[in-house]
Order: sequence, then structure tokens, then C-alpha cells
Amino acid sequence: MSLLVVGSVAFDSLRTPYGEAKHILGGAATHFSVTASYFTPVKVVAVVGDDFGEEHLKVFHDRGIDTEGLERAPGKSFRWAAEYSGDMNEARTLDTQLNVFEQFSPKIPAAYRDCDYLFLANIHPKLQLDVRRQLPEARLVAMDTMNFWIKGTPEDLNATLASVHMVTINETEARMLAGCHNLRKAAQAVQKLGPNVVIVKRGEYGVISFHGNSIFSVPAYPLEDVHDPTGAGDSFAGGLMGHLAQTGDLSERNLRRAMVYGSVMASFAVEDFGLRRTARLTRPEIETRFREFKSLTHFDV
Amino acid sequence: MSLLVVGSVAFDSLRTPYGEAKHILGGAATHFSVTASYFTPVKVVAVVGDDFGEEHLKVFHDRGIDTEGLERAPGKSFRWAAEYSGDMNEARTLDTQLNVFEQFSPKIPAAYRDCDYLFLANIHPKLQLDVRRQLPEARLVAMDTMNFWIKGTPEDLNATLASVHMVTINETEARMLAGCHNLRKAAQAVQKLGPNVVIVKRGEYGVISFHGNSIFSVPAYPLEDVHDPTGAGDSFAGGLMGHLAQTGDLSERNLRRAMVYGSVMASFAVEDFGLRRTARLTRPEIETRFREFKSLTHFDV
Repeated sequence: MSLLVVGSVAFDSLRTPYGEAKHILGGAATHFSVTASYFTPVKVVAVVGDDFGEEHLKVFHDRGIDTEGLERAPGKSFRWAAEYSGDMNEARTLDTQLNVFEQFSPKIPAAYRDCDYLFLANIHPKLQLDVRRQLPEARLVAMDTMNFWIKGTPEDLNATLASVHMVTINETEARMLAGCHNLRKAAQAVQKLGPNVVIVKRGEYGVISFHGNSIFSVPAYPLEDVHDPTGAGDSFAGGLMGHLAQTGDLSERNLRRAMVYGSVMASFAVEDFGLRRTARLTRPEIETRFREFKSLTHFDV
Repeated sequence: MSLLVVGSVAFDSLRTPYGEAKHILGGAATHFSVTASYFTPVKVVAVVGDDFGEEHLKVFHDRGIDTEGLERAPGKSFRWAAEYSGDMNEARTLDTQLNVFEQFSPKIPAAYRDCDYLFLANIHPKLQLDVRRQLPEARLVAMDTMNFWIKGTPEDLNATLASVHMVTINETEARMLAGCHNLRKAAQAVQKLGPNVVIVKRGEYGVISFHGNSIFSVPAYPLEDVHDPTGAGDSFAGGLMGHLAQTGDLSERNLRRAMVYGSVMASFAVEDFGLRRTARLTRPEIETRFREFKSLTHFDV
């Protein structure tokens, strides 16, 4: 079934201990849609500027992504420059130019309105809610957010949280949002705000989901080299939502598989800069790593 | 089969956001042996002072622990005072009095020399090596260590590491010992120093084992309240070694189960101060939580 993502398309300039990449295609909607395209048809709503050329569009089209919702506005695309050092757990932002993204007002093409699966990537919660209301019948609506909105626009964020089924959120942000350190209590507090499924992203420690009363933990794949963590969270969400949309099965059992597919896709994403690894995967590679996650986590009772 | 632990018995004074406990029985050998006693017969080698009374000995005897190796020396027992605040990930030491522990020279009773399973809790690596050499035929020798020895006595530590099969170590210490941040590479570097099994303790993120080329990750049990993290690592080791000694099965398959039993026991240990929870467990409680770990981690392929 078809999956819609609304979020940013950006050009990133990144420096990590493994090297540097300038002006490469990035943004949450990009990482999400390219990743999810390995599982299900994907549609994207985002805004780009004059600097977004045919070669960038090709990245989406090569993966069969529907770009009818990719709006072109005069000016430059969203640009972000950052550097990671040491343990690479956190990006240090060097420069943010919102450019055309500053006035982004997501327009959902008529042909997108019957999408059953919707991912609201990290944008202003008011815009997320606006989009969510345009797809009132969606079977599964998930959202991401960040500290900026938790601190800056808590009322808007709460309204959006109350309207979705699932949220993916960083560990620190989950604690900030809930106002408590204990993760289990924090997740329960976030569930009370609306989403029945709260997925907490813990960086190199993996992810943990709280679905009703069920808790499921997946470690991160123990890579020998992480070249660029940018987009790991959106790649996780792309694998997660991609698998759910592909199977149409929202049971706890299948959500667990989706959590693992998300972890698989995040592990590939960080192996190289930007989309270098993610844009060139094969389904057998994905399945092989999925089985490696089983070997990493399973034991006999 | 019988399991020997050599390490500290201490009196701890602890303050956490959940309360305070003064002069309670603690120490690595105590936490380890009480925990392991749920799985297999345990013998302990440690030193205590005049302040160690019948009521303290009873804690060991109530769990059937052999205390022939518990040496009594004139003076006070090892005392440690610490406080945990905020996320309780690290203890702030308020006071350390080594007392009789300062001159501790482990004496292994003749009746202990045929123990097949040996755990060298965190003491000076020279003492660990001395003990290890007195049990040359042991089937499985595991050790713990800490930053103090990694920095202060690296040559002694390397000699001890070269003589054991398994090491349990904190994440930060593994990185310090290996001189590299990436955990997979750090574990491989530690394996090259001797132990074929490197188990990295990651606090609230659980544990990960590197056994030859096999990697296995177990999350921590997501408790709603952690009252006192003291002894979590030694309780983990007690469950791990206890299960291995009980079963006599050193296969990867059984090591995984042992990792989970260790995680189960650590999760109980932190639910209350000192040994309050650990000393009063039942085997059905342990098995119930073991199954909860399966539910926490398993997915269908």
C-alpha cells in the first residue's frame, strides 16, 4: 500500500572523522522516501529551490518515488552544514539556511489523499497537523519531532501528537517531552498524549518501542565503521513504515519486524555519506542483514 | 558444578534519589555470590574485619555459600560511601576506606582448588593472576576490572587478561583498554589480549558479548524504578557464571542464555538497596523475568 512522507529535502555539507561531503542531497523526506522505496510505493511532499536539478530528481525517480508533491519555489533549497566529531553521537550545526523551506506550506496533491500510510517528518507541528487533517482516513499516521518544537511550540506539538498513532523520537527528546528521566515512564507519558506506539531512538544503542503495554527492544547493528550518522533516524522510519505499508499488517508481531527493518536500513544509511549506500541497496542485502539482527538478539529459552 | 569467586566484601553507605542506606553489606564478591547461589554451589574468598558479625555471615549461609575462604583480619572491613544523582549512571564516591582489604592476599583453601568455574572480581590484577594460577585446571575463568587498573597497572592487567577465558567490562573501560571508540573494534582488540569472550556492560542499555566472531546483545530490563545501581555488574556476572556452572555447557547457545540470566539478576539487584531484593528471590521469579526478556527481544523472521 502507498506511503506518503511530508518533510524536508535539503542539501547537506557534512564533515565527520571519515571525511567530508559538500552539498549532497539530504533532508528527512529524502532519506525516508529513498529508504521506504525498497518496501512499497512512496509519494513525497516537500519543497525545493532552483538549485534542485534533474540529477537530484533522478535520485527519487530511480527509486520509483512519486514526486508530484515536490513543489518548486524560487530561491535556494534548504541547506544545512554540520560536523560530527569524537563518538559522532551528536551533530554540531555549522550553518542552517532555511531558504525556500522557511515558507513551506505542504500541499497535498489530490492523488495523494487516499494514502493509507503517512509519515510526518520533523517540521513545524502546525504543518504536521494540517497535513494529518487532509488524510483523515489514513490507517497509520506516524510523526517525528525534535527538541526545538518541544521547547518552542509545546501546544502545537501536543495537538499534533493527539492526532497520530505513532511517534518516533530521540531518547533525550522523549525525556524532555515527558519531563521525566525513566524511559518507561517517559514513554507511558508520551502515550497518554496520543500515540499508542512510542518508538524511542537511542543512537548507537538501537531503538525501543512501547506499543500499548508491549515493549520491544532492538540493538543497533554493531558496525565497525560509522561514516556519517546523518539521516539514520529517517532511514529507520523509512524501513519501519515501508515494511508496515508493504504488509498492511499492524499487529504487534509485525510491528516488531518493522522495527528490525528500520534498524537494518539505519545501519546501512550510516555506512557512507548521505545516500551513497542507501540509494544502491539490493533486497537480498536487506534480507541478509535482517537475519543478522536475529543472530544478534535471539536466544533459546 | 562449583563456582569460586574472589573479590571484595564491604560495607556500603549509599544515597540515591530514592533514599539512603547506611553500612549495608556489599562488595563485589557478596553481590556475585548471593546472586550465583540461585544457580549453583558457590565458594567465596575474601577478607573481612572485626565489624563483620554473625548477622552478616548469615546472609551467605542462608544462601548456602561456602565461606571457608572468608578470611577474618583485625581491623575494619572495606567501607565505601557513594551517592547517585540524576540519571544514576555513575556513582560519586564520597569515601573509600580500604581497611583490611588493603593487605588482602587471597588464600585459596585446599578444598576450593578443584573448582571448575572461577570469577575474579575487581581487585588488583596481580592478585587476580595469583589466584588464577592456583586453579590452572579451571574450565572457565572470568574476570572483571576497572579504569583504575587500566590506567595504573596496565602490564599486570595484560598478564591477567592473557590468562583468562572471559572478561566483563564497562563500555567506557573497554574503550579505554582498547584505545578506540568503536565498540566492535574495541572488543576485538580486547579479545587479542587473551579472553575469547568479551562482555561489555552498558548500564541502562544492557550488555553485549563478543564470543569469537559471534556477537549477542541483550537490552537492560526496562524497569520503572531503579533504586540503587550498586552491584548491578557483579549481579550480572553472578547470574552469567552461575548459569554456566550449573549447566556445564560453554556453547555459544548456552552463553546467550547465561547473558540473559545475568541481565535478569542485574535487573532484580537494582530494584532495591544492597541485597534487599537479591537475597529474597525465588527461582520462579527468575524464570518469569527470563521469559520477559524473550518477549522484550524476540521477533519472527
